[in-house]
Amino acid sequence: MKKNLGNTPIVAPLPVLIVATYDEQDTPNAMNVAWGGQCGYHHVALNLALGHKTTENLKHKKAFTLSIANVETLVLSDYFGLVSGRKENKIEKAGVHITHSEFVDAPVIDEYPLTLECKVVEMQEALGEMHVVGEVVNVQADESMLNTQGKVDLGKLQPISFDSVLRAYRVLGEVVGKAFKDGSTLL
Amino acid sequence: MKKNLGNTPIVAPLPVLIVATYDEQDTPNAMNVAWGGQCGYHHVALNLALGHKTTENLKHKKAFTLSIANVETLVLSDYFGLVSGRKENKIEKAGVHITHSEFVDAPVIDEYPLTLECKVVEMQEALGEMHVVGEVVNVQADESMLNTQGKVDLGKLQPISFDSVLRAYRVLGEVVGKAFKDGSTLL
Repeated sequence: MKKNLGNTPIVAPLPVLIVATYDEQDTPNAMNVAWGGQCGYHHVALNLALGHKTTENLKHKKAFTLSIANVETLVLSDYFGLVSGRKENKIEKAGVHITHSEFVDAPVIDEYPLTLECKVVEMQEALGEMHVVGEVVNVQADESMLNTQGKVDLGKLQPISFDSVLRAYRVLGEVVGKAFKDGSTLL
Repeated sequence: MKKNLGNTPIVAPLPVLIVATYDEQDTPNAMNVAWGGQCGYHHVALNLALGHKTTENLKHKKAFTLSIANVETLVLSDYFGLVSGRKENKIEKAGVHITHSEFVDAPVIDEYPLTLECKVVEMQEALGEMHVVGEVVNVQADESMLNTQGKVDLGKLQPISFDSVLRAYRVLGEVVGKAFKDGSTLL
């Protein structure tokens, strides 16, 4: 039996993306974003409220890094979503360490084991949000997250997901199937 | 120690979204999409290759449903991504059942326990893809997926995620933290 629940989307899994930017004085900031994801072979999309410090920083610097929040960085990642960068220096308060990206004018937060370094290629207001598209220039991963083939092992990384119903974080779990393969039984 | 891995994004978790549409003859079709997600309070975004049958159907009907692939529907969901709707009638071949959405001119695939019914509010070519924004008009869920408060329980639903490194599906796991709360220890 199906029930109609109204017009509030439930999309799952939603990511928890940590977007880090510099302002005009090169002060780093970070926020967390669930409304974003991959949007092309080398591109990621973010949808941000217009008032964020990050939105302003993106306009000036045309660059950001995007780190994947995981179980290890859950508390830190939640904190980045609790406070506005206009009110306090979150990077300083959280006590995390910043390295300037080798590739773009944006800060890498050393504590995250997986970070995408991105150039802004599009910023457009839509539906009261700022839609931002970033071209991924480099992916930086901590060696401890790699498998024996040198590729990122999401089982080691343990990315988290935002559960919008419970307002909770869930961890990404085990492999349950092969893509472009398991469906072939229906061919 | 961090390593640079090149410019192929690793975004996690990516969703597995089943997009269902009618063509001009009202024949239903379905495909699967990992490049999409929520993009506003009542909006979802999809990024589709231009050549898809679905892209054409969206232009004509300006409507789609979006179902959340889960463990129970994994084989079916993978199949929808293996074959083009130009080559065969995937709905017929998979033997699934269709109900016309009450709210939009698009098919609901009965076998999925969670489906968003959406009107197309934007279609725009960008980066060689079709960027589609849908306004969610209704969310339909099977009663078996609801908790005692009548809300969707993602623990029951067991959504799957596309692991782009392994080309595999992972299941969304257990709750590991509270959003807008756990970070308050850093305030």
